[in-house]
Amino acid sequence: MTELDKVKSIINQLEANPTDLYNNSFFITWRYPKETVNAVLLVAEALQRLNRAGKSVKVFDTGLGLSIFRDNSTRTRYSFKSACNMLGLGTEELNESTSQIAHGETVRETAAMISFLTEVIGIRDDMFIGEGHRYQKEVSDSIQESYEAGVLPQRTSVVNLQCDLDHPTQCLADLSHIIEHFGGVENLRGKKVAMTWAYSPSYGKPLSVPQGVIGLMSRFGMDVSLAYPEGYDLLGEPVEAAKKFSAETGGTFTVTHDMAEAFKDADVVYPKSWAPFTVMEERTKLLRSGRMAEFKELEQNALKQNATHMDWECTEELMKLTRGGKALYCHCLPADISDVSCEHGECAASVFERYRLATYAEAAHKPFVIAAMILLTRFQNPCSVLTQLLERDRERRIVR
Amino acid sequence: MTELDKVKSIINQLEANPTDLYNNSFFITWRYPKETVNAVLLVAEALQRLNRAGKSVKVFDTGLGLSIFRDNSTRTRYSFKSACNMLGLGTEELNESTSQIAHGETVRETAAMISFLTEVIGIRDDMFIGEGHRYQKEVSDSIQESYEAGVLPQRTSVVNLQCDLDHPTQCLADLSHIIEHFGGVENLRGKKVAMTWAYSPSYGKPLSVPQGVIGLMSRFGMDVSLAYPEGYDLLGEPVEAAKKFSAETGGTFTVTHDMAEAFKDADVVYPKSWAPFTVMEERTKLLRSGRMAEFKELEQNALKQNATHMDWECTEELMKLTRGGKALYCHCLPADISDVSCEHGECAASVFERYRLATYAEAAHKPFVIAAMILLTRFQNPCSVLTQLLERDRERRIVR
Amino acid sequence: MTELDKVKSIINQLEANPTDLYNNSFFITWRYPKETVNAVLLVAEALQRLNRAGKSVKVFDTGLGLSIFRDNSTRTRYSFKSACNMLGLGTEELNESTSQIAHGETVRETAAMISFLTEVIGIRDDMFIGEGHRYQKEVSDSIQESYEAGVLPQRTSVVNLQCDLDHPTQCLADLSHIIEHFGGVENLRGKKVAMTWAYSPSYGKPLSVPQGVIGLMSRFGMDVSLAYPEGYDLLGEPVEAAKKFSAETGGTFTVTHDMAEAFKDADVVYPKSWAPFTVMEERTKLLRSGRMAEFKELEQNALKQNATHMDWECTEELMKLTRGGKALYCHCLPADISDVSCEHGECAASVFERYRLATYAEAAHKPFVIAAMILLTRFQNPCSVLTQLLERDRERRIVR
Repeated sequence: MTELDKVKSIINQLEANPTDLYNNSFFITWRYPKETVNAVLLVAEALQRLNRAGKSVKVFDTGLGLSIFRDNSTRTRYSFKSACNMLGLGTEELNESTSQIAHGETVRETAAMISFLTEVIGIRDDMFIGEGHRYQKEVSDSIQESYEAGVLPQRTSVVNLQCDLDHPTQCLADLSHIIEHFGGVENLRGKKVAMTWAYSPSYGKPLSVPQGVIGLMSRFGMDVSLAYPEGYDLLGEPVEAAKKFSAETGGTFTVTHDMAEAFKDADVVYPKSWAPFTVMEERTKLLRSGRMAEFKELEQNALKQNATHMDWECTEELMKLTRGGKALYCHCLPADISDVSCEHGECAASVFERYRLATYAEAAHKPFVIAAMILLTRFQNPCSVLTQLLERDRERRIVR
Repeated sequence: MTELDKVKSIINQLEANPTDLYNNSFFITWRYPKETVNAVLLVAEALQRLNRAGKSVKVFDTGLGLSIFRDNSTRTRYSFKSACNMLGLGTEELNESTSQIAHGETVRETAAMISFLTEVIGIRDDMFIGEGHRYQKEVSDSIQESYEAGVLPQRTSVVNLQCDLDHPTQCLADLSHIIEHFGGVENLRGKKVAMTWAYSPSYGKPLSVPQGVIGLMSRFGMDVSLAYPEGYDLLGEPVEAAKKFSAETGGTFTVTHDMAEAFKDADVVYPKSWAPFTVMEERTKLLRSGRMAEFKELEQNALKQNATHMDWECTEELMKLTRGGKALYCHCLPADISDVSCEHGECAASVFERYRLATYAEAAHKPFVIAAMILLTRFQNPCSVLTQLLERDRERRIVR
Repeated sequence: MTELDKVKSIINQLEANPTDLYNNSFFITWRYPKETVNAVLLVAEALQRLNRAGKSVKVFDTGLGLSIFRDNSTRTRYSFKSACNMLGLGTEELNESTSQIAHGETVRETAAMISFLTEVIGIRDDMFIGEGHRYQKEVSDSIQESYEAGVLPQRTSVVNLQCDLDHPTQCLADLSHIIEHFGGVENLRGKKVAMTWAYSPSYGKPLSVPQGVIGLMSRFGMDVSLAYPEGYDLLGEPVEAAKKFSAETGGTFTVTHDMAEAFKDADVVYPKSWAPFTVMEERTKLLRSGRMAEFKELEQNALKQNATHMDWECTEELMKLTRGGKALYCHCLPADISDVSCEHGECAASVFERYRLATYAEAAHKPFVIAAMILLTRFQNPCSVLTQLLERDRERRIVR
């Protein structure tokens, strides 16, 4: 089957996965029906295959994609801009230091001001528990209000480029990679995925990746094993979602405080550091009230606490415990690699090196996942759109 | 009449409003003939209607639009980039901190260096009395020299995105909003517009908006009432222009130091803070000579002076004085709203909230006003261009 | 002959200059065969003529051009973005302060992360002897690895926008200007070009321009005279290349420590400051090891040493020594002009003013040189591409 034959088959599957994303925003995977998640995966795959076949996937003649990054980013920033570019949108980045966005009145106003000719706004806001999603929702609601009042000619979408709860573009890229690795979504059933905490010399890494992973992977009949040292709990909502999804799809969801137990017979391992939820909550409170001395103390304690779990490292010994010693190693990058980027980190150098190019391929799905979210939120009939992209005579390169 | 029928009618009106903007720059509305102002309004309306109808208004296959912001900006920055994008131009922003633009030799050189493939340069330079317009003119003249010498293949336009004298893209957007509100430019005759000073807890706001408003609204037979506390005079040139235009068009232009008098029977009110001209002049002088102690003192005095006029606020009581209590409230945003963005500000919260979405719609005209300026300065025959945009089969969305 | 007839003739010449640039990067002119250099010059000229004739030279429907500037830049930054835009690529700039690129693992990873939908990455890294080229090569090799592993769907090119060794986009623009001035590349034979050091009140200017000039101009049968005060030696590699090329093409390459001797009968003069190679080496070492006190001392000594050569200025007297007193003055800009941008500088004000617009025209070639490098590294058959650009009915302006 050629790439283009596969796209035809994807379009057929997509017919069975209608979504209510049109003229809406994309926030948190576990709050959407399974069909919506499937639709994003399918459209992303179709776009990636069309791109590989040299096809142009431009759908807009003009229009803008805006990004707001409240935290540093290379991978997601670049993926968002690539997604916009492939669909035909120009990109702009809102620099809040020169633009004064805050909460309340200012959000409503700014959301309108930047949306007049904008198709999509991508937002990363992951630093404060209880705030990131709320802010994205506020922008989206403000757009909805202006759209309904006729101020905006189109209902600009908001796409979650990481919030305090979920990191959907990352986790759906991870999942796309896993699906590709196992040769199809139907092969995920019964596979064991170990989402485990790992030691990092830094502190305060967001919880959105592990939360997103368990809230997503549990929907495909997989055996999801979540492992972390005591005290590093995740938020309740994604954990409850994972339990429910596992029960519904015939998989399992287990929590352990033993890294080796999670690795045992795993088909996929995702060892990655995060901060304890309670620490992140306390951190938010202290930063908000400007109690910097207590904040510094919290930080020191968190680092000390981390350091007692230095043995949570993805070593060759642990990898040997996985199914056939050959589990797929996943990471959202950048990883803290022992003896490479730090003295002790999340992963041993030899393990990482073996999977290094695979993690790049994992990341390569992200621009297409984001493009899929844009396409599904902006177009009412995605099957029709993909069919036209497939059939029209338009290449990425205009001349040869 | 559909949007597209209206565009046809606009093109007919445009025939009667030839301009000399082709291969030129757009600086200050009151220095242009009325036909030029009309042409910008008409082209902006046509572009906005084409956009609402889903038509692509791309006129360039490639080319760049550059912006130089010497002051913070969200609305105008985004409007400029939207304008460029809808016409098919890529955008770049010149960051002077990494680029060293100054006066003299450097301006002439840089103007050429950034214009080789550039159709338009948008400049905001509003902080120093006597400088903003001069700088924009210097860039434009340098481009003209390089164009005549054959160094530049096209005569890049400069568009004034706010200078020390005028803020034409803002004021023409305001006017477009007022015209839409009253159902046509022919209905402006005899309407009363109150451009009034209002109290703000900040200081040093530019004079370009009130100057632009009186220099523009006075050209349509309106009764323009300018109100401010004694000592907050505007520059002479726009005041003289407003007097002359009012006399010519059968309107009136009056100055009062009583906010209520201005609001009395007004059809439109525009309450907005600005700094006294003399303070801005003194400020420029002190900053230029690095006399920071005196500058701080000036600032303190200006704030104290402002604070004596805290009663200059757009309250419900004042709004009741307007025609039927229903004048259209206008603002360039962001407004200082009492009890919302500050303790005491330009406008009472309940008044602002009633007009909030209307002020967003007001701002929505700006991208199209800027696009109209670009189109009129870059194309010799705007009627022909609009006719092609209307008739050709090219939508903003390439697929459905 | 019209511009388009000339393009036809260029395409014919290009047939005779095959390159191995396809799916490769462009680094250092003197390491490529002469055919490669010729091909860049020809494609750049063709693109510039097509542009002047109003033709669109868009070759990509979508795709990105990324830039990484590790040093300030206006001219080259804007030229790169213009080049990308004319070919149809969106542009993004990687900000390392928010993106953490370093050496080793991080470079390999980031090179992949930013290349998924990227056609070209332009890099300026010229501050440290022994580092700039190495870094560009590292990025290019990392891309090659990911491309071969199937992670990247295309082999993104790296284009050298100035490194520690060469500044090829500048020097090829200079050469294009000289060729145009003398009416054809065939007229360069026997012309004398004086690449001379000149005094500047600043210090630490890179060596890449003089190195690039001698390594390039020596390939066309010219008499290249390199002049500098004792101690301001260039690196050995470009000097050896210049010697070899001169011998091969029937030109000469001479080094002198007398500015007047270099200017004597010169057809082209290029007076420009640079730091002594040994000082730059020492500087790199001190900065790398954080020995700031010694660094400051080095800087002071370098400035003192410079000041002893204040007589190395391009004066009217020196210009009178050139062929007919009418040598073409070249500069990469910005120049240090005596009594204009500084008290004593590289060039007298009256000399510079006479050639000012010519130096702008010189710079105008750069966007097309960069576009030529992109086109040659991205397309296997540049003659076919240019033929299509020439023959197709696509203008820069879509409507008239």
